[in-house]
Amino acid sequence: MNAKKRIKNISAVLSPKSIAVVGASGEPSKIGHVILRNFLEGGFGGKIYAINPNAAEVLGQKCYKSILDVPGKIDSVVIATPSKTVLGIVKECARKKVKGVVVISGGFAEIGNKAEEEEIALVARKADIALIGPNCMGVLNPSLRNDSVFLPMYKMSRPQNGGISFISQSGAVGGCIVDLSARAGVGMANFVSYGNAAAIDECDLLEYLGKDKRTEIIVIYLEGVRDGRRLMKVAGEITKKKPIIALKAGKSSLGAEAAKSHTGSLAGSYLAYKTAFLQSNIIEADNLEELFEFTKIFSQPRAVGKRIAIITNGGGNGVLAADSIEEEGLKLAEFSENTKSVLRGFLPPYANMRNPLDLIGDADNKRYEKALSVLMEDDNVDALVVIVLFQTVAIDSGVVDVIVKNSQMQKKPIIVVATGGEYAQMHRRILDSYGVPTYPSPNSAIRALKKFLQYHSRVQNK
Amino acid sequence: MNAKKRIKNISAVLSPKSIAVVGASGEPSKIGHVILRNFLEGGFGGKIYAINPNAAEVLGQKCYKSILDVPGKIDSVVIATPSKTVLGIVKECARKKVKGVVVISGGFAEIGNKAEEEEIALVARKADIALIGPNCMGVLNPSLRNDSVFLPMYKMSRPQNGGISFISQSGAVGGCIVDLSARAGVGMANFVSYGNAAAIDECDLLEYLGKDKRTEIIVIYLEGVRDGRRLMKVAGEITKKKPIIALKAGKSSLGAEAAKSHTGSLAGSYLAYKTAFLQSNIIEADNLEELFEFTKIFSQPRAVGKRIAIITNGGGNGVLAADSIEEEGLKLAEFSENTKSVLRGFLPPYANMRNPLDLIGDADNKRYEKALSVLMEDDNVDALVVIVLFQTVAIDSGVVDVIVKNSQMQKKPIIVVATGGEYAQMHRRILDSYGVPTYPSPNSAIRALKKFLQYHSRVQNK
Repeated sequence: MNAKKRIKNISAVLSPKSIAVVGASGEPSKIGHVILRNFLEGGFGGKIYAINPNAAEVLGQKCYKSILDVPGKIDSVVIATPSKTVLGIVKECARKKVKGVVVISGGFAEIGNKAEEEEIALVARKADIALIGPNCMGVLNPSLRNDSVFLPMYKMSRPQNGGISFISQSGAVGGCIVDLSARAGVGMANFVSYGNAAAIDECDLLEYLGKDKRTEIIVIYLEGVRDGRRLMKVAGEITKKKPIIALKAGKSSLGAEAAKSHTGSLAGSYLAYKTAFLQSNIIEADNLEELFEFTKIFSQPRAVGKRIAIITNGGGNGVLAADSIEEEGLKLAEFSENTKSVLRGFLPPYANMRNPLDLIGDADNKRYEKALSVLMEDDNVDALVVIVLFQTVAIDSGVVDVIVKNSQMQKKPIIVVATGGEYAQMHRRILDSYGVPTYPSPNSAIRALKKFLQYHSRVQNK
Repeated sequence: MNAKKRIKNISAVLSPKSIAVVGASGEPSKIGHVILRNFLEGGFGGKIYAINPNAAEVLGQKCYKSILDVPGKIDSVVIATPSKTVLGIVKECARKKVKGVVVISGGFAEIGNKAEEEEIALVARKADIALIGPNCMGVLNPSLRNDSVFLPMYKMSRPQNGGISFISQSGAVGGCIVDLSARAGVGMANFVSYGNAAAIDECDLLEYLGKDKRTEIIVIYLEGVRDGRRLMKVAGEITKKKPIIALKAGKSSLGAEAAKSHTGSLAGSYLAYKTAFLQSNIIEADNLEELFEFTKIFSQPRAVGKRIAIITNGGGNGVLAADSIEEEGLKLAEFSENTKSVLRGFLPPYANMRNPLDLIGDADNKRYEKALSVLMEDDNVDALVVIVLFQTVAIDSGVVDVIVKNSQMQKKPIIVVATGGEYAQMHRRILDSYGVPTYPSPNSAIRALKKFLQYHSRVQNK
């Protein structure tokens, strides 16, 4: 029994060379079918074994009666069978010296069946198996197309490879965020739905991901935490180097009761969490939108201060942005004299050379290009919020190139606000996929920016 | 000079039988081009006149040198010419006995040119012309395809006909919300971008829309208000019958300064606004997302209380919803004994018959149908929040029918939460277009629900 080894074995779950799906089924509505299909059609490069004692073949794969019948080595086993069979299968995993197990099956602590869950956990711990779940939705590593998430691909898109690792106690919440990321073109390193956390809990996962080279940002949805002190210790170390963004559910007494019957979690005192988050520099999101919005901004380079420039082609959004700047305790940058004189050179005579900078409704790509270029050079400006009303006649997709080019210099944080229907959404997706975070309103953008600046200033002051 | 008549003439702006576009242009990037094209291609049923002294024909339309040369009557004139020409054209409108004018052109109070704006307003007032603008983005009445909004149709979709009238001091903010509505299939009665409000201000528009039969819900984005007392009086009367949802920009000192150079508005003390909104039962939105989210919920029938049922196929969302219920001061309904026994009859044995009701991840359309049907009949339940993880394998588009059918009984408010990528978004759009408001998170849904219940309880207690 070696906790460090068990945590290290999480790599077998996330980056296996061989996997087995226990409960592989020919029935399209079965979870074991969806998972096997995702491995086969998703392009997983390693070996795939289908396990089902009652079938000779599923989806063209030969079926083994048990993992013990598989001739070669198996790194990771995904279990999607009725709850009463799980303990036996995990015991087989121990005998087969499997390092990683993902138990999709529910019916344990979340419905009061604690004893059996504890038995399973004990087997895993004794064999140093990194066992994820039970009662979880699977794991995802896009770089290897390792994908045991049981939501069909046509319903939930898979994200591209990237730097975000997301661990979620709730499969549903996890699935929603992964789906959002995929649609926006935001890349992920790993997704782990960890469910009841019987043998591998949030702290183990954090410890692992803190050292994982592919992981640059850690995102976590949690209902309960086993060991608050350890969370603070582990997270406090990680946040010196990588940001952690967390959404805590079960904050209220009603929510805490709901959490108990969901993942069997004791939600604990929210005040204690809030304090722990603050002390370990974890960025707290208040809801699903914020969780996604805060995460995206950490693709940006560190800023030296909180003097923000707002650029827009729609004055009303500038007014709303100025309100948010004040509300969040940030500052509107004072443009340098040089900036003002350059702006005067190309803006219409009736434009104001002040911040928020209204490029006026007839602004074209060129005007954005010139404005961005001078503000990128202005030492009074620490970060840029670029608001684009894509719907005007004067502007087109070229403005996306302008923004991406400036962003890729990695000199200052640049974030974008665009609101609207399909035309605006499409351009948001392009920007997001190039690592330029986009937001549906000035308010949400500036709230995210505030969290970003706050995190970095705390890291620097430690 | 008759203010009542001028306000009545807003009908000429919103529902004209004949319009003239002054500044009609053959140049695709010109605003006068976009507007004429929108009238021609959008399917406006009335007469359309193009005015341009320097062209014989634009977009296949004969050009008149001035509106005075047009042989017949003109109900409404849209002006998209340089600012210095506007006063002369408005004088011609007065001579021609035009009732409505929309001045798109900017270059007035927002850049300090107050005198000329006041002169234009005076001409309009003397002739009882309902003059919208200057410095505005146009107006839209989808029922007549009356459309002077100068954003091209391929960039900003036009909403279907419906009950929401939206007046916005900012064209950009207005355009964004209209575009959002169109994409979601949320219907609109009117959209008015009223810019500098020289002759027709927010109170005039409210007074008109309060009596407008097609308008069921009024939405307003404002930076400044001329006459706070009148706003309270007019709005206080309207909200007895129709909800008004408002977003106030220029709340902070930074925002107020930005507002001044945007629409020449004096933003005033935010505390005074907050009090006025409260006293006149105006629902205040804090940001763009809320403005749209609060508006949608008013398609729902009145609720008798605040006991909410949450239904979900993803437990985590139920936990988040319970948190929000407590945070917003609402109540989780206690299911009746009958409800519990019906639920026991069709839910899996390990399901909890409690609220939030987790139908479990393998819930299909039928399970949602049975759950909705019993909760619609439960007298302990005042409103329903239906959370759907559309991404699961067991559920399909049929669940949309189930929800719409229950919603159409108009017995209790039903709102839906769905988060995710294209598959989830598509189903949200279908629901929204059937008048079932959808939200991206439990949090945003329950915040909207709270505002909805609060409005109705205040109306009843007055």
